[in-house]
Amino acid sequence: MQMINVLLSGCNGHMGQVITRLSENFCELKIAAGLDLNNSVNNPYPVFTSLNDCDIKVDVIIDFSNPKAFDGLMEYAQEKRIPVVMCTTGLSSDQTGMLKNDIAKRIPVFFSANMSLGVNLLIELVKKAAKLLEGQFDIEIVEKHHNQKIDAPSGTALAIADAINDSLDEKYEYTYDRHSRRKKRGKQEIGMHAVRGGTIVGDHSVIFAGKDEIIEINHTAASKEIFGVGALKAAMFLADKKPGLYSMSDLIAENN
Amino acid sequence: MQMINVLLSGCNGHMGQVITRLSENFCELKIAAGLDLNNSVNNPYPVFTSLNDCDIKVDVIIDFSNPKAFDGLMEYAQEKRIPVVMCTTGLSSDQTGMLKNDIAKRIPVFFSANMSLGVNLLIELVKKAAKLLEGQFDIEIVEKHHNQKIDAPSGTALAIADAINDSLDEKYEYTYDRHSRRKKRGKQEIGMHAVRGGTIVGDHSVIFAGKDEIIEINHTAASKEIFGVGALKAAMFLADKKPGLYSMSDLIAENN
Amino acid sequence: MQMINVLLSGCNGHMGQVITRLSENFCELKIAAGLDLNNSVNNPYPVFTSLNDCDIKVDVIIDFSNPKAFDGLMEYAQEKRIPVVMCTTGLSSDQTGMLKNDIAKRIPVFFSANMSLGVNLLIELVKKAAKLLEGQFDIEIVEKHHNQKIDAPSGTALAIADAINDSLDEKYEYTYDRHSRRKKRGKQEIGMHAVRGGTIVGDHSVIFAGKDEIIEINHTAASKEIFGVGALKAAMFLADKKPGLYSMSDLIAENN
Amino acid sequence: MQMINVLLSGCNGHMGQVITRLSENFCELKIAAGLDLNNSVNNPYPVFTSLNDCDIKVDVIIDFSNPKAFDGLMEYAQEKRIPVVMCTTGLSSDQTGMLKNDIAKRIPVFFSANMSLGVNLLIELVKKAAKLLEGQFDIEIVEKHHNQKIDAPSGTALAIADAINDSLDEKYEYTYDRHSRRKKRGKQEIGMHAVRGGTIVGDHSVIFAGKDEIIEINHTAASKEIFGVGALKAAMFLADKKPGLYSMSDLIAENN
Repeated sequence: MQMINVLLSGCNGHMGQVITRLSENFCELKIAAGLDLNNSVNNPYPVFTSLNDCDIKVDVIIDFSNPKAFDGLMEYAQEKRIPVVMCTTGLSSDQTGMLKNDIAKRIPVFFSANMSLGVNLLIELVKKAAKLLEGQFDIEIVEKHHNQKIDAPSGTALAIADAINDSLDEKYEYTYDRHSRRKKRGKQEIGMHAVRGGTIVGDHSVIFAGKDEIIEINHTAASKEIFGVGALKAAMFLADKKPGLYSMSDLIAENN
Repeated sequence: MQMINVLLSGCNGHMGQVITRLSENFCELKIAAGLDLNNSVNNPYPVFTSLNDCDIKVDVIIDFSNPKAFDGLMEYAQEKRIPVVMCTTGLSSDQTGMLKNDIAKRIPVFFSANMSLGVNLLIELVKKAAKLLEGQFDIEIVEKHHNQKIDAPSGTALAIADAINDSLDEKYEYTYDRHSRRKKRGKQEIGMHAVRGGTIVGDHSVIFAGKDEIIEINHTAASKEIFGVGALKAAMFLADKKPGLYSMSDLIAENN
Repeated sequence: MQMINVLLSGCNGHMGQVITRLSENFCELKIAAGLDLNNSVNNPYPVFTSLNDCDIKVDVIIDFSNPKAFDGLMEYAQEKRIPVVMCTTGLSSDQTGMLKNDIAKRIPVFFSANMSLGVNLLIELVKKAAKLLEGQFDIEIVEKHHNQKIDAPSGTALAIADAINDSLDEKYEYTYDRHSRRKKRGKQEIGMHAVRGGTIVGDHSVIFAGKDEIIEINHTAASKEIFGVGALKAAMFLADKKPGLYSMSDLIAENN
Repeated sequence: MQMINVLLSGCNGHMGQVITRLSENFCELKIAAGLDLNNSVNNPYPVFTSLNDCDIKVDVIIDFSNPKAFDGLMEYAQEKRIPVVMCTTGLSSDQTGMLKNDIAKRIPVFFSANMSLGVNLLIELVKKAAKLLEGQFDIEIVEKHHNQKIDAPSGTALAIADAINDSLDEKYEYTYDRHSRRKKRGKQEIGMHAVRGGTIVGDHSVIFAGKDEIIEINHTAASKEIFGVGALKAAMFLADKKPGLYSMSDLIAENN
């Protein structure tokens, strides 16, 4: 097998450095070049502050930078026909729209709400369960994160709920607060609960509660490294694909 | 040891019948008489439809009837100096005020928000934990009940939160919905989450989340029998007490 | 849709009576006849003590009786070409062999280690997860049952472990006791833990523990009714099938 | 309040460095000197390779070094009358015996099987629960650790079980493997289960399972920092104490 060469955009940020460390354990992939405005970190690969200077041929780009770098990087990737694993968060809806509808027609694009393999497996399992149990079990999602998190529920919890909704015949509503009303649970609710405390990295539980039985599927993250591992696996998955939009769900399907 | 004779008020209701069955396993206590407007059930003790007809001497009353019976029963108990284990739910605040402030001065009264020994032990443990961890750990309560329950959070969840607040130096606020705001968790919040689904009898979890460690204390009820067992133990505890207001917390302290 | 008529073998045993009650909620199925040596229970259908006397035409047999009744019942089912949902436990390996290899060639046979829909969904989910995570995550099974249970681990825990093994490329060994050795966990172990306590009906957790992330899939049973529901659903599934061996896994696939 | 000066023995080991970092958040305590054979690390305090060279006056010693350093360090501490927080693991039984019986008579000694505040709070809670529930609930301990751990069950799980036994009237036996026998759970068993997988830092659950109710007390550690925090708190607790043997249980009692 041939070595896959990666261009790591945002290589000197927190996740960039995590990926740099992790990549040393991947024998079929290596980071051939980095891209970052900040060039003060010592890396085992050349780092460029501008794409114009980058003269190294790569097979795939992993982007963990920020939305401002999006336009330039996408232009470069399309021109050179390089597949992109897009991990930057906070993209505008214009940007994600362009990514999914335009760019993915010309190059392979990998894009997922959550880059952890485990969370995406949880989503696959939950979809399967929801489909089978529809109408007979009530669905509730409890997510737990650290006390500095500003948004609630987590983007991942919403992605899980949306995935459930996609796999159900009927559309379900999300219920965030039962305290403010006095009535029985509706049949087509998904209860969403955002626990916040301490330094919890990330915990997502999906509860299917039926008559005298409960199925619960839970994912616990102990560090952000798992997102880096997901990005590296996505790079290996994407390197030989045709243009199109891919997600963790496709990566999981290929391995299953 | 002498046998304790119980008058069971509301003996033909659901919980009355549960207690009737359970009492057969208590060798130091027996139900000597029942009281119920409905007299159609066959019981191993005489049942009266009115207290006026009851000529059997008892050592303690267990009341699992309804708020309408409160006045008559309390008059009877005070006149005859019989201790009362009050398990009827839905009492008015006037009634509970009278119970705690007046009646408990004349006879022994046992009154708890939740009659299960386990839940009350959980409350004791949680108070101890909250006191020690104050200021360093965030506190969240997740309770789970069946999909027919109308109120949220459960009365027990509120009793737990109130007990935590009583044991803290600072007063904490209860947070029911984080979805409606975009800000970090406050230091003096107790998050309250009401999961509803299927036929869950009752599940209460108190989470103390700190820096890199979590303590969680959980109680799961599998049937309503546990409230009956609690009532019978309370009756045994109360039979030889002086007038006063007692709760599960006192019963636990006596056994500890 | 036509009503499905069921012959319930073992109708006056504990599970037979559970199924009798549950069947009233199934509008496309009814119990048309019962079979039991004990004829002292009042049922809303005729009960026969011998198959020779049974003159009622049925579409499917549910058997929750005992291994002694196996031979006679199977003869009857094959002669009359009636599908059989086999729920009797404790069959000999000769009997299960005959069921799977001979009888299932002539009539539709439904046979599963655990009749609960939820447990069988858990098995499907676990197989999917094991396949994807093979080699990267350690697998452990923790099951919990009441303190009167004699066997450990539970038959269901073993069925889960076997299903995992079937879906893995490498074969894994089951580890029951780590206390007796001083060494690191092997890569190809499945840890099996049998918690026993109180009146726990049945709880099965499968833990996939990887680098900095854990996926846990859990099933909790609150009563034995769920096995009855599973049997009734199996009867509806089986009524129009061709001869062959079917299991909950097929029923789940059909609904998914 | 006066600043407490600490001598950190083993300052350049993994836990020594963790404590060095953590101490910066403690405003009433500072590390005044370090002791380590390895002197290659840059620390914000002077480091000595031998106690003979140490000319800095300290109020308390934290020892996270190794058993070989025990004798010299204890001689020094006794001579100078300096309280010692002993966190070194793997001491011989001779050494722990001397520590508890001799040294603790002359100077204040702090010694606990597990230095995390949370685990020790769990032990306190579990003791309280065990005492109250004795004879009515079955007790099981499930601990989870990473797949590189050699011993099973964990020392902490054993410390929990021993603490339970100390608080019970009857002595309970530890059961490690139910697979090897076919019989009901004994009344006086504590089931011990050692789950091993992935990179789990440490998880301990104590389950009290009774008739139709379960109480579970759980501690999850997300990093080893919590042991460092415990050591620093122990140093502050110990600085003004009289000679004697102290443990986390005393520290918790003082704060409760």
